[in-house]
Amino acid sequence: MKQLKLGIIGMGNMGSSHAKKIAAGDVPEVRLTAVAEREPDRLARTKAYLPAHTALFDTPEALMDSGLCDAVLIATPHYEHPSLAIKAFERGLHVLCEKPAGVYAKQVREMNERAASSGVVFAMMFNQRTNPVYRKMHELVNGGELGAIKRVNWIITDWYRTQVYYDSGSWRATWAGEGGGVLLNQCPHNLDLLQWICGMPSRVRAFCHNGKWHDIEVEDDVTAYLEFDNGATGVFVTSTADCPGTNRLEITLEWGKLVCEHDKLTLYKLDRNEREFCFDKNVGGFERPSWAAHEIETEGEDPKHLGVIAAFAGRILNGTPLTAEGAEGIRSLELSNAMHLSSWLERTVDMPPDEELFLAELNKRAAASRHKTGTGAVFRTEGSYGA
Amino acid sequence: MKQLKLGIIGMGNMGSSHAKKIAAGDVPEVRLTAVAEREPDRLARTKAYLPAHTALFDTPEALMDSGLCDAVLIATPHYEHPSLAIKAFERGLHVLCEKPAGVYAKQVREMNERAASSGVVFAMMFNQRTNPVYRKMHELVNGGELGAIKRVNWIITDWYRTQVYYDSGSWRATWAGEGGGVLLNQCPHNLDLLQWICGMPSRVRAFCHNGKWHDIEVEDDVTAYLEFDNGATGVFVTSTADCPGTNRLEITLEWGKLVCEHDKLTLYKLDRNEREFCFDKNVGGFERPSWAAHEIETEGEDPKHLGVIAAFAGRILNGTPLTAEGAEGIRSLELSNAMHLSSWLERTVDMPPDEELFLAELNKRAAASRHKTGTGAVFRTEGSYGA
Repeated sequence: MKQLKLGIIGMGNMGSSHAKKIAAGDVPEVRLTAVAEREPDRLARTKAYLPAHTALFDTPEALMDSGLCDAVLIATPHYEHPSLAIKAFERGLHVLCEKPAGVYAKQVREMNERAASSGVVFAMMFNQRTNPVYRKMHELVNGGELGAIKRVNWIITDWYRTQVYYDSGSWRATWAGEGGGVLLNQCPHNLDLLQWICGMPSRVRAFCHNGKWHDIEVEDDVTAYLEFDNGATGVFVTSTADCPGTNRLEITLEWGKLVCEHDKLTLYKLDRNEREFCFDKNVGGFERPSWAAHEIETEGEDPKHLGVIAAFAGRILNGTPLTAEGAEGIRSLELSNAMHLSSWLERTVDMPPDEELFLAELNKRAAASRHKTGTGAVFRTEGSYGA
Repeated sequence: MKQLKLGIIGMGNMGSSHAKKIAAGDVPEVRLTAVAEREPDRLARTKAYLPAHTALFDTPEALMDSGLCDAVLIATPHYEHPSLAIKAFERGLHVLCEKPAGVYAKQVREMNERAASSGVVFAMMFNQRTNPVYRKMHELVNGGELGAIKRVNWIITDWYRTQVYYDSGSWRATWAGEGGGVLLNQCPHNLDLLQWICGMPSRVRAFCHNGKWHDIEVEDDVTAYLEFDNGATGVFVTSTADCPGTNRLEITLEWGKLVCEHDKLTLYKLDRNEREFCFDKNVGGFERPSWAAHEIETEGEDPKHLGVIAAFAGRILNGTPLTAEGAEGIRSLELSNAMHLSSWLERTVDMPPDEELFLAELNKRAAASRHKTGTGAVFRTEGSYGA
């Protein structure tokens, strides 16, 4: 079997989790040839769980220049994603980038341009796109048989995190180190799925609350109102302090409604297009179209992160499709940038948000960012990344 | 049995529905002695369904001055509720007022003051307060055992109405005739329950869309964001064009979560207060408090409108409690006034909203209101007032 020689950059929660699984053979088409980690203790600890043949490097550049890797998986703090990806592109290395694509759209736009001109494979770790329920929603909404979208409502508050989590990393939950809170760390998945299923909104008004539930300077509670070009509206609510949280995505369309909750997808299908029924002169004032509720069968397993990594290897080795193209990472980032900017300026923001203005506002906050020392704890993350 | 002699003012959808039921003996402690209706054809039609002993009047004042009634139920278009209630108070008549209490808080404040000084019984037709599910939510949230509220989210989009409905009344869905759309006609129930269960918010930012789904000049689609004094936030979404609509009320508190959907109430109860757990240094970064889900048993039937009418009679005849005090009607109206005002001015509005400013803005819209002729249709309304 052909194998992709992969190096992982960053041995934090995500990087170490991926490394263990690949080293254990969970993605047979990938061989973990190297890892890089700048923090010496953390790098030393990898010896306990990685095979002897995996080379260890104390800088990303040393790993990239080693000749041991054809591709890299970038799992560092967010700010570095674009610059490291660009370094990899320059060396002809394929890149799988953890979410978010970066912290501000301007740097991600440059990354996308460099990826396009380099000709390497560039993918984003949007592992929730492998969930059969969301794949089915994407298919049903974009297939057109349900008509235009009228409303979308996502309550995605099941990203619970304790203060201990926030205290673990010096970069974590700071404007200077992470560049945001729940929108940038947990929600890139949901924001990506939202745009993948429903398309991009045209206007955003958001209400972000910083350090509302935790001792942090960034947002841990967000309510956003969205408007789309076709007149549809949306609500997106998230938090890292609701327990038990909710993950309920509802999409109302001309021909009915899709509801995804508890990993179950229900379609309420009308017998007539509501828009036509509404203006029928022969119906009563309180009458409604009839509907039937269907539990939608979804096909296949959810391979999650391993599926994204396998698809990345598959594209490089055999030309098969990616789970998510790298260039698509900018969309969820534009959404979170717009939500931050709207909340900072206390006004509605048109999409895409002004990149220079966003960066200037972010830099103000980063300049005033408080110094923080992390505990350095690495957590077991299984089952912690949402349904 | 002692009986209350009741007159009903307004023989539209609601007034005629109440009249039929009372005439049929559905509220044994009430005798329907008179009805008033200004529209001659509609008044004449009442003869077909009312007993011969029920007197018919072509003005509210004639009914009030007839000496046939001890109390009146006001079921006219909204603008008239306060002025008619005040006329009744002046004559020493008890008043049960259909929702909303009025169209703008200023007139309702005057009504409340006049009610207080008159000493008669004054009640609001908040028939959804008789729903055992909402009674239980009120009890659980206000009982305190679940701690402080952190978030409330109500998707209440099951108020479906067709264009034929809006075309039926010349006053309906106009700024001059009705003073608003879904917020003023359908949502007073939900806004009342929201404040009854969760208390009044301190700030509101709303996005109302006028004539978005119907050929009307008022709002038929609303998304509102709420902030409460204790830091809790909320979302309220409503529409008369979603089909099938949703009625899902979720309240997150320190000790868990209440979810009411499909007329079923579920309590997710934590084993520890989340606020305390979050800052416990001995828990992991991704750990959560444990919880158990309980389907909450609710007691009793839902007597709906008839229960409110019976309680009204009970207070007058025997001093027993009302379903909703008349003076409380101003709260849901302040909420809808704030949502309108926020949307008109495109900014956050502090509660209570400025009454003079609201009225000035409403009057601008009423002055430009389009002329409309109604079909005069009266609809069967059973089962149309939400769960």
